[in-house]
Amino acid sequence: MIQSIDHLGIAVRSLDEAIPLYEQALGLRCLGREEVESQRVRTAFFDVGGVHLELLEPTAPESPIAKFLADKGEGIHHIAFRTDDIAEQLKQASGAGVRLIHEQPFDGAAGKLVAFLHPKSTRGVLTELCAVKPGAEAAH
Amino acid sequence: MIQSIDHLGIAVRSLDEAIPLYEQALGLRCLGREEVESQRVRTAFFDVGGVHLELLEPTAPESPIAKFLADKGEGIHHIAFRTDDIAEQLKQASGAGVRLIHEQPFDGAAGKLVAFLHPKSTRGVLTELCAVKPGAEAAH
Repeated sequence: MIQSIDHLGIAVRSLDEAIPLYEQALGLRCLGREEVESQRVRTAFFDVGGVHLELLEPTAPESPIAKFLADKGEGIHHIAFRTDDIAEQLKQASGAGVRLIHEQPFDGAAGKLVAFLHPKSTRGVLTELCAVKPGAEAAH
Repeated sequence: MIQSIDHLGIAVRSLDEAIPLYEQALGLRCLGREEVESQRVRTAFFDVGGVHLELLEPTAPESPIAKFLADKGEGIHHIAFRTDDIAEQLKQASGAGVRLIHEQPFDGAAGKLVAFLHPKSTRGVLTELCAVKPGAEAAH
């Protein structure tokens, strides 16, 4: 079952330029930064009432975020829903005709299992499913 | 101060085609529909752990959602942050160099005051600020 919105991913060209917008214009506090090598991104994250905003800056031209920026420019990149059973959630989505980018969940950041649904079958919304791994506490 | 993410606006060509995606593929329940004449949209909304997803279908070619669909296609349209003091929040954003679409908040749906920041000064993210009007309870 989907329990909450875990985070929103926002594609930016530069964390150093984007962080002050969220800090100074919106008064949010940056909780930290992290580099996710597998995705070729650097992230900076903010908490907004339990939902994280994750700013995503590409670290290489082959990063999915670099491709998004080239195609669409800066903006909201994906919504991540938190579920208590990611395998069941993938099965439900697939059964309803949604194309899966990942048939099986894989290890994401912060002790989570993650998988993506394809935006072509979710009306343009790149949709991530994530779940805290059994026995793990989400680090952020 | 920003308290939470109030809702996410998602532009769709057809509510009737998009609602089943959220119901059947993600298992969310549509809480209702509403027509907002001033914005020339029909909306359908879902609750996800306290954050609303609002699907937005244009009802006329001059609707801002019709323009968004023509430019970018279906997808995430805006993020709405809930604040306890919308006038102060607008002042803070403006003071940090953000261009305001609305200098003054106006009456939105569900007993709320709303105002938008311009995406050209928020790195491509159309950003809504909203606040429950004093004495009003948000209807949804």
